[in-house]
This record gives sequence, C-alpha cells and structure tokens, in this order.
Amino acid sequence: MTRPPLKVIAAAQAASERLADRHTPFIFNDWYVAAFGNEIKDQLLARTLLGRRLVLYRTSDQQVVALEDRCPHRSMPLSAGTLERDTLVCGYHGLRFNAQGNCIEVPSQSTCPQNVGVKAYRTHERGAVVWIWMGEAGEADLSKLPDQDWMVDPLWEKSQGFLSLQASYVRLHENLLDLTHLSFLHAKSFGTPDYAKAAFQSELGDGQFALLRNVVPTTLPPVWAIPTGLTGQGQAARIVRSAFRSVGIHEVSVTFYDCQLPESERPTFRIRTAHMPTPETATTTHYFIVHGRDFALNDPDTTQFMHDQLFVAFNEDVEGLALQEQALANTPPNELYEFSVAADAPAVAMRRYLLARQQKETPSASSTCK
Amino acid sequence: MTRPPLKVIAAAQAASERLADRHTPFIFNDWYVAAFGNEIKDQLLARTLLGRRLVLYRTSDQQVVALEDRCPHRSMPLSAGTLERDTLVCGYHGLRFNAQGNCIEVPSQSTCPQNVGVKAYRTHERGAVVWIWMGEAGEADLSKLPDQDWMVDPLWEKSQGFLSLQASYVRLHENLLDLTHLSFLHAKSFGTPDYAKAAFQSELGDGQFALLRNVVPTTLPPVWAIPTGLTGQGQAARIVRSAFRSVGIHEVSVTFYDCQLPESERPTFRIRTAHMPTPETATTTHYFIVHGRDFALNDPDTTQFMHDQLFVAFNEDVEGLALQEQALANTPPNELYEFSVAADAPAVAMRRYLLARQQKETPSASSTCK
Amino acid sequence: MTRPPLKVIAAAQAASERLADRHTPFIFNDWYVAAFGNEIKDQLLARTLLGRRLVLYRTSDQQVVALEDRCPHRSMPLSAGTLERDTLVCGYHGLRFNAQGNCIEVPSQSTCPQNVGVKAYRTHERGAVVWIWMGEAGEADLSKLPDQDWMVDPLWEKSQGFLSLQASYVRLHENLLDLTHLSFLHAKSFGTPDYAKAAFQSELGDGQFALLRNVVPTTLPPVWAIPTGLTGQGQAARIVRSAFRSVGIHEVSVTFYDCQLPESERPTFRIRTAHMPTPETATTTHYFIVHGRDFALNDPDTTQFMHDQLFVAFNEDVEGLALQEQALANTPPNELYEFSVAADAPAVAMRRYLLARQQKETPSASSTCK
Repeated sequence: MTRPPLKVIAAAQAASERLADRHTPFIFNDWYVAAFGNEIKDQLLARTLLGRRLVLYRTSDQQVVALEDRCPHRSMPLSAGTLERDTLVCGYHGLRFNAQGNCIEVPSQSTCPQNVGVKAYRTHERGAVVWIWMGEAGEADLSKLPDQDWMVDPLWEKSQGFLSLQASYVRLHENLLDLTHLSFLHAKSFGTPDYAKAAFQSELGDGQFALLRNVVPTTLPPVWAIPTGLTGQGQAARIVRSAFRSVGIHEVSVTFYDCQLPESERPTFRIRTAHMPTPETATTTHYFIVHGRDFALNDPDTTQFMHDQLFVAFNEDVEGLALQEQALANTPPNELYEFSVAADAPAVAMRRYLLARQQKETPSASSTCK
Repeated sequence: MTRPPLKVIAAAQAASERLADRHTPFIFNDWYVAAFGNEIKDQLLARTLLGRRLVLYRTSDQQVVALEDRCPHRSMPLSAGTLERDTLVCGYHGLRFNAQGNCIEVPSQSTCPQNVGVKAYRTHERGAVVWIWMGEAGEADLSKLPDQDWMVDPLWEKSQGFLSLQASYVRLHENLLDLTHLSFLHAKSFGTPDYAKAAFQSELGDGQFALLRNVVPTTLPPVWAIPTGLTGQGQAARIVRSAFRSVGIHEVSVTFYDCQLPESERPTFRIRTAHMPTPETATTTHYFIVHGRDFALNDPDTTQFMHDQLFVAFNEDVEGLALQEQALANTPPNELYEFSVAADAPAVAMRRYLLARQQKETPSASSTCK
Repeated sequence: MTRPPLKVIAAAQAASERLADRHTPFIFNDWYVAAFGNEIKDQLLARTLLGRRLVLYRTSDQQVVALEDRCPHRSMPLSAGTLERDTLVCGYHGLRFNAQGNCIEVPSQSTCPQNVGVKAYRTHERGAVVWIWMGEAGEADLSKLPDQDWMVDPLWEKSQGFLSLQASYVRLHENLLDLTHLSFLHAKSFGTPDYAKAAFQSELGDGQFALLRNVVPTTLPPVWAIPTGLTGQGQAARIVRSAFRSVGIHEVSVTFYDCQLPESERPTFRIRTAHMPTPETATTTHYFIVHGRDFALNDPDTTQFMHDQLFVAFNEDVEGLALQEQALANTPPNELYEFSVAADAPAVAMRRYLLARQQKETPSASSTCK
C-alpha cells in the first residue's frame, strides 16, 4: 500500500477532530492530584499544573496551601522566597502574602494596596493524595471527586509512586482504557500473549468509560502469580476492569482466582491501581500512582516486590507514550491520521467527552488552539 | 562602509528569492540515498528523510523495505515494534504490517480493516548504496537515477563514509559547485593557495551544472601526492570537474598527472567522489560519501590513508556549513542578503533549478513556506 | 483571594503596556558596552549585541574594529576567518574586508565588485571599556555617552567583571533603580533588613532617573564594614543614589561615614559601581561591571575582597532576574499582570522612557512586536 486512499484519510482526520488530544486546551473545572501529601511540608514546593505555575506548602495547622507562583508586583516566583509563620515572603522586594493569597505587607511603604494578591486554589487531602480544583476556588465541588474507598481503607495494602510522562494526559487515559497493549508493550513485564485476544466488553456512561476483559484461563506473570500463589500454567482467571472515573483518575481493578476450583470454594485476590495524571503542559504529565491489594496484608516484602514489578511495566507505558507523542509532533499535519478499532470504543468516547467538557468550559479557546 | 546601499541590498534580496534555500520545501519526486546497504539488516532502522519518519529493514530475500514509521492506529513508531518473518508488528497494540505496508492483523479483533496501512517507498540498491524514491512509489522512475558506473566497477578501489550535517542540503550542493573554497576552508587539508585563482569554466545544462578547474602546474597536498607519487613542487596537474548530477548526488572527478612529462608519456591518476546529501530536515542533512580511485588497487593502506585525509577535509565542510546555517538563522530577515560572484554561476543556476523543480511539484506549498 | 478583580487586572495590564519589556524592540541609536578593552586583541572575537552578530578585533594601531559578522557573499561568519594585516579574510571563499567593512578582494576573480561590504560600527574606548554605537556609524554622537569621570580617574581604585544574564536588560535597569530588594534578594550578601524600610526620594528627569536612599544609622555588611572600619552596630550612614544614566549604563553611588561623629569631623568613604547591560537577545544580556572606591588605594587585597563579595551579590541578581524572566515567559499572556508600588516610580518612568525612545526610533516595529 502506498498510503490509504485520500478519502479514507480524510474520514479518519475528521473523526479525530472530534477527539481531545494534545491540542485541546485544559479542563480547569475539575479535581487533579497536585502532589502526594508527604511531598508537602513547611517549605515551598514549586509545581506546574495545567500550564500554571503554583507554589505549595503546608501551614502549621496542616492545611495545604496552593497559590499562583508569581509575585504580582514584579513576577518573581514566590517559590524562590521564604515561608514565615504560614505566610509567603517574596524573595525580591519582600511583599508578603497570606494563605488566602492576599498581599498583606509591602516593606518599602507603610500601607499595603487593596486588591493585590495571587490566585489561591482549593485543595483537598484524601489518603495519600492532595487533590486540587484548578478552576475558581469558589466553584470547587467535592461531589465531583470520585470516591476511592479502597485508597483510604486500612484493609487494603498500598504503595505509591510517581512518574514524569513526556506525553499528553489524554494519551495516558487512552492507553489505560484499552489493555490490549499488555500483550505487546508489556510483553516482557505483566502482559501475556492471550491478553490481546481475550473477549472484552465496553461500558460507555455519562463521563464514565470502562473496558472489561476476562482472561480465563490464563497463566499469570510473576508480579501476580507469586503473591497469589496462582503459579500454574493456565490455572488462573484474570478479570480486569479499566475505568475512566474522572479527568484526574483512572482506576484499574483486577480480580484473580484459581479457575480450576469450583466457584463456591475459590478465594479471590483483588488488586486496584489508581492512575492519576495531572497535565503539566500540553505534552507533559505528572503521573501519580497508588496501588493496592486486599491480600497479603502487612507483608512489606510482597509490597516491595509488587511495586518494583509494576513500575517496570508503568515505565514501559511512559517510554511508549513519549515515542507516540514524538511521532505525533513530527508528522506533517496533513499526513497525520489515526484509525480506531473496536477495542478503542471506550477511549474514543472518553476523548469525545473530554473535548466536549473543554468546549463547554471555554467555547472560544478550543477553536483557536485546534 | 556602513552596509551597502539599500538599493543594492534590495537587488541582492530579490535575486536570492529566485534561489532554493532552507525555506524551500523538499523535492519529493526524485532519488535520494536512504542508507548504505550494509546498514540495513534484519532489524528495524528508524531514519528521517525529507522530514518524513521512515523505518527500514531487509527481508529474508534481501529486499530493502522502507515504510512510514508511524502506526496508523495510534501513531506509535513502528520502529519501536518487532520484525517477525518479514512483517512488522507494532509494539503498542500489535497491529501487523507486511512489506507492502498493508495492515494484515489486528490482534484485538478477528477481522482486519480494509484500506489501512502505511506508505511504502520504492527503494533501489546499487553498489554500496540504497536509493529511495521519496514520491509516490508508483511514479518511481529509475531512468532519473544518474548512472554511477565507477561506483559499481570492481576496477575502482572504493571507500565510504557518513557525516551528519547541520545545514541545508542546498548549501552542500552549493559548496561543492565552487571549489574556490579549497584554498580557504581546506587550507590545512587538501586545498592549496593557487586553487582559488585558477581559471575555471562553467557548464550549465538542463538540470546538470558543473564547474571545471585546471590547476596546472600545482603542488599536490599529501592526500594526493603520496598515493600518486607526484610529490614535487609544481610537478602536478590537477584537473577537476565538480558536477551536480541530480538532487541526490554530486560527483567530483579529478585527474592528476605529471605536467613535466610530455602528454603522450604521462600516466593519469583518477579519483572520484560521490557526495550524496539527503535532507533530514530543512537544516539538517544525511551526508553519504563514496570515494573511488583507478590506481593503487588492492592497497588497503592507501585506501585507509586517503579516506582519513579526505574525511578531515569533509569535516571542515560540515563545520563550515553549520556555521553558515547558524548565521543565516540568526540574521534578521530584513538585514539578510547575499551577493554572488562569477564563480557562483553553476551554483546559482543549480539553486534556481531546485526552486523551479519544487515549485513545479507543489505549486502552492512554495509560496506559503517562503 | 482568588486572583484580583478583572477590572483591577485589566488596569494593571494597560499600565504595563506603556512600559518597555522583553517584547520591546531594541534601541539602536545609543552607546552600549561592546567589550572590556582587554578582551579585544589582534584576533577575532565574535559577539552578539542587540541581536546582531558582530566580529571585533584590534588593529595594529590599537583601534577597535567592529564589523557585521557575516560575509555578504555566502553568509559565513567572518569571525571564522582570519585576520591578516588588519584585514579580515573570510574562511569560506577568501573574500577580504578592510577595517571599514569594504570588500577589497575576491580571490576567484581579478576585480572586486563595488558596493559590497559589511556594516562597520563606530566604537569608542574609554577607560576599561569599549563602547559601541549600535545605530548607523555616521550618526554616532559622543555627546550622548554619559561622562564617567571616576572610571578614568587614577585616584579611584577599580575592579571589573562580567556576568551573563538570562533576562532582559530592561529588567536589570529596573532592578537597579529600586534597591528595596537589598533586604530580600541580597539578605545574605550586602543587604540589611532596615534597607527596605528606609525613606527614599525619586528623581525623574529627562532620560535620567534615580532613587536616593539614606540608611542612617545602619550596620554595614562585611563587604563595606571591613574596608571602611565602620564595623560597629548602628555606627554607619549609608547614603545611596541609584541612577539610570543612559540605556547602556546605570551608576550606583554610595557614601559611607561614621554617623556617631560630628559632621565636621567625619571622613567619608565613597564607592561607585557602573552597571552596564548590553542586550544580547531580547531575554539575554551581557552584564559588564566596573566598581571603584576612593579609599584604601593601592591595596590589592581589599580590591580582591570587595570584588569577591560584590560578585556574590551580583550573582544573586543574575539568578533572581533569570527566575523572573522564566515566570514572565511561562505565564499565559491573559493571566500576566504586574502592579507597581511607590518605590517603583523611577523604574516605571525609566521603562516608559525606553518605550518612547524605541517607538520614536522605529515607529512601526514596536507595534508588530508587542
């Protein structure tokens, strides 16, 4: 083939136009992970979220403060200043801001101007994670933050990690919604050849998208086989649900059991992974991960073993998505097109949803950036 | 002088507008060197040619396959996948492509969609070199590939090398068409002071441009003096023809002889160098070189000696052209102008020809990129 | 605060529009420091000033030559060529230029074309410094170069240094015109806490802007306390005048004395620092510094001690201004605004002046670059 027919390419390009991608402006009115809670102490942490430079710190009463990281006087990053008694002092001319972002002191004069300050963001700490509402603080709506019961449940054994992804967060959500790639991108880590060919079902809800896959019977890779003891050839069932829960969190839930035992007698082993991408820029993403299991509790060796194995695989995603993003960046626009297959249905619906969310939020911005 | 008069600058700028340069879109309907044949094995080689990302490999029957290096499903570089029995399996979701670029398997479903595939390029291996037609494969025309008889002639002793040039391929062709620069850029390698002042003739044909220079008598630099034995002061004749043969190949042919011998009795020593630039981007070029001689056959020490000496000089071109390209990039457009001198006639004609070729190929693209 | 009210932001943005910043085109018709005199020898020095690539060298009669660093033939940087008997030979095809920038030889032909050459800039060496007029040489006006008597006065002990600043020269001038920042940015070097709160006066003249600050009584930091012997707590007066003298030079003049002595009996100690920023690009600056004192003459240890201490502080400016410039670059334009305070009066006036100067020079360029 010397490239697909032009009509076919044009149709693929038109379909892609309806999907969010690296060119889609960010969605601000939602919750994202700003940091793990243990990253935020009584010192200043600079971090760029959704293209906005923020400074984070923890007050003496343990509240997490998130402010715009730019002094409104002469644009010095406030994170280059100092934290003094829960207030921030700019390192250039000493303007002082309180935890609400208000300027409360200008050292070179006796009075402080009114209405000068920096944007303060609403944060919410839950379990290991600090969430942030990237829109106006007054519109922050905790009901829009999906429950993550297992993430705060002491009966789930947990570990956490962070990866720096050189790709759009949209592509990470897309990656997670079709685990066909386990057989290829993760062939040497936690994928198995039968994974790609296993039957799957799509769930397309209102802002909720999932793909379910029953891989039964299968042979588990070491990361699961060893902790569960399901080490036999074709001994295991692997029941997987990949779910986009909100723009800031994707949850993968897996149940393993011994499929050679009768249903009534078999114990189940459950693992969950919260994949929490926060855009840094259009094509770089803070990738926060919390992993949990409901078995082998209080077993730090197993925790460490699984964590290490999992992060080998997650690093494969990080490397692969960076290559994808480079190819997208380096293909002449008129020669760029993508075809979807059946297993893409949840991801395609999710990307349509993201685009619609963004367009609803800032109707005009979208058209100018496309 | 405080800069030439504005009228003079404007005239120079107008003249340059008619010449191809870094801003001129690529010419696709022609042959370029994709690689040396020995670079292409039964594994995947990624290479960007004319701004297009390609993946190259050799099939079990020794054919060279060149495909677009982007999976049309989700844009993963195919070069990050695997080669299995002459077919390419994408490393993300496992789509499989044959040597013709057709998609022949989608693992997550039982049927493979029609009309999905990647562009396949026409290649042609000749001697040490794999040529590629960068336009549509169906229009590939072998008659447009200049003959290079000496490059496949066992009676010519050959060596080859590669340089990565941080400059436009246009400027390399220009460089080669006026060897005045041997006296300056190559003063310490294979140039001599008399070179620049030697009489020259231009040949301006239809897509063929050459400059001939007879440097007689002259003293040869070591790279030529030692292998030919023409080591005496003013003993040698150096008869040089620099010829643009096509957008993908420039040939320098030199004949040396002892000018102190009568014409009937003097042996000649001939060398040829094929300079084969393939644009990578607008301002970076893959620079393939094959060098040959018709004397001192089967003498590997001489081959190595000449190769090493030549590449010192070719590296001087690479360094100089990169400096030139940086100056072009960093000069404000309204202050940029270039004057031509008489020795530029072949290069100016060649650059006009390249611009005309490009404009004929994509009439509209040219105006938008200028 | 969740960001200031939109009306307040809009007013701040409108005020900033009237101030020069990184987006303001350069002002060419003025004097800038090209180099320290001891940098310019009988060899070629390439340097970019105001976005223009120049080559500098010294002739056999000690004149400083400054030429456009681009051969008008094929754009090779002339600084990559050679200097031969006060003339410059291009390293590509050997075109030769004299100190006036005129092309006087084309080796490949017997005649040299008329009206070919490069722009020659007017230079003026004074004390340690080589000044350059970046406009047309014929319009160079020495009367516009501020006197710097102490810089050529043997009764002032001097040292000099250079810093590479990753920020706009405008922001360096702004920095220098309000030394409130000594208490914060330089808290660990030569600032003291009382500095920011000391009373100040502004002087706003025609192209002359200054801020005066009397810090009395104060405790001197080691850089001043040790050489003056004013080491007591609250013993010293520190009388400071920061003055923008021209686009190319800002002068800080400080007088110290023992404020516990009666006025008629106290010796004074004076130091001066010439801060001479020359834009390299819109957001990078060559930062030349000459420092002098009128006490402890012929005392190299004191000179070295003060130089080292001062450059710790000047490096704090360089680091801080780079952070400021990064924040400016990475803030979405519609979210960028800056408020001024009373102590900014001289800097605001200076930035208005720079913008007016630029707009007068090239009325149209300004609007296109904004």
